Amino acid sequence: MKITIIGAGSIGLLLAAKFSIANHTVTMVCHHIQQANKINTEGIEYRGTMVRRVPVQATSELQNHKVDLLIIAVKSQQVSSVVQHIRMIYGEDIPDMLFIQNGMAHIENLKSLSHNILVGIINHGAKKLDDVTVLHTGEGTIEVSTYQGVPYPLHSLSKEDFPIYYVRDWNSMLARKLVVNCAINPLTGIFDVDNGELLTNARFYTILRELVKESSRVLNLDYEEALSNVQAVCIKTARNTSSMLADLKRGRLTEIDAITGVILKQAELKGLDAPYSRFVYDSIKGLEKKID
Amino acid sequence: MKITIIGAGSIGLLLAAKFSIANHTVTMVCHHIQQANKINTEGIEYRGTMVRRVPVQATSELQNHKVDLLIIAVKSQQVSSVVQHIRMIYGEDIPDMLFIQNGMAHIENLKSLSHNILVGIINHGAKKLDDVTVLHTGEGTIEVSTYQGVPYPLHSLSKEDFPIYYVRDWNSMLARKLVVNCAINPLTGIFDVDNGELLTNARFYTILRELVKESSRVLNLDYEEALSNVQAVCIKTARNTSSMLADLKRGRLTEIDAITGVILKQAELKGLDAPYSRFVYDSIKGLEKKID
Repeated sequence: MKITIIGAGSIGLLLAAKFSIANHTVTMVCHHIQQANKINTEGIEYRGTMVRRVPVQATSELQNHKVDLLIIAVKSQQVSSVVQHIRMIYGEDIPDMLFIQNGMAHIENLKSLSHNILVGIINHGAKKLDDVTVLHTGEGTIEVSTYQGVPYPLHSLSKEDFPIYYVRDWNSMLARKLVVNCAINPLTGIFDVDNGELLTNARFYTILRELVKESSRVLNLDYEEALSNVQAVCIKTARNTSSMLADLKRGRLTEIDAITGVILKQAELKGLDAPYSRFVYDSIKGLEKKID
Repeated sequence: MKITIIGAGSIGLLLAAKFSIANHTVTMVCHHIQQANKINTEGIEYRGTMVRRVPVQATSELQNHKVDLLIIAVKSQQVSSVVQHIRMIYGEDIPDMLFIQNGMAHIENLKSLSHNILVGIINHGAKKLDDVTVLHTGEGTIEVSTYQGVPYPLHSLSKEDFPIYYVRDWNSMLARKLVVNCAINPLTGIFDVDNGELLTNARFYTILRELVKESSRVLNLDYEEALSNVQAVCIKTARNTSSMLADLKRGRLTEIDAITGVILKQAELKGLDAPYSRFVYDSIKGLEKKID
């Protein structure tokens, strides 16, 4: 397949490396020309159970090339401007697209697109070590669902060691992941702990449960199921620094609006109070502004 | 006056120095013999608008001396054992006592005492620099009220530059201070900020307001009045590290049970939910156990 990946963060680099290793033709669209040049000359270094340097094409400007799939791997808050850019470059003849953001805030931006749109969830741990090096910290799965247009199972992309599953209902797929992010991301950010400590510290676990209870109620999900889901992710990624904690430590804006922000909006629409979610939302927003 | 002060932390040292400077006869009861020896040989160094080294008597064991006032300046969680110790040493002939703990949890321990008991609030900033040195970081007032027995205004102790005010209703006096502590102490501990940042960071201030709303409702206090009280303390102590944050940084247990713990108990008795207080209570308890 011919694949263009917009966004060269940890997940973008991971997908580019893995799909290139599987002999797909990958082009990366980077935000900075420096990173694109470096990828073009050095390729991407994948570090997982094996270490491999993979040649990958890169550019800093999206071009109107015919591709089979356009993967949008930017942060949730960048989706709006990326979508506008895609429309500008491709006009009405946009390739099939796969959006793999955290949370559900980006969904709002997809409504203006009339083509085949997939949404996906990346259950992998990945850390960008530098512009061309990605560390695969946790092997997992990718789940994909059709947001609109023709169902599109992506069979040809799935590999035994990098499996992609097709899920029927995009909404519940994203909602399930949203509850996980709502609980783990802000709490690790506030308490400055790895994911695993939310289970091993009984007090943090109490707060985690309350957050899961609140957000699963807002999203109409089963609490017990949501909680065991969250527990499983905490165990599997016990030693991981969450992306939100990493963002705070680097003084970057977090994805809190796409995550807890969505819960608060949904709660308001449904007339439900969500005090724990309000607390963590304001905490993360405050920590973003905290001067160190 | 002859005064014995039990507890040689920042507040104990501050009172000992100030009352000694005012020519009262002060004896300090320290937890460690080393500190007592050091105070006996070096005195206490007071650092405020002026710097003065003051000779003060110290011991590590409470003795059955006739004194005019016994000031109990230990942490809230130590009051129970100190009260038992006082009863053991003095039998039924206990001097008049002044308890100056944070929160309201210590009140429970005073019920077993049948003598003149004062409770007080210290609106001063003080930092213990070493065993014999105290930095007066913020000048304020002391409020005193009669918990039981004969009203006891402490006129003779009050000085223009170190004023002591008598308050009629001990319960509302402690409740007013409790709301301040409930809001400032845990939040500065969780967010690792000075007191002032709870006002200047709009998001932290949002959380502060919710906490004040919740605790003033639980304690039957006027919200607006409580909030302006909290604001005033944040402004006055803007550069201060709260005692709770200091305790967390040094890996010590905090006074969260005497502060937010009291709100939670009161809320339960009254059938009120206090989610923000629950959140901060579990957060501080979790941070106490966090391994750095």
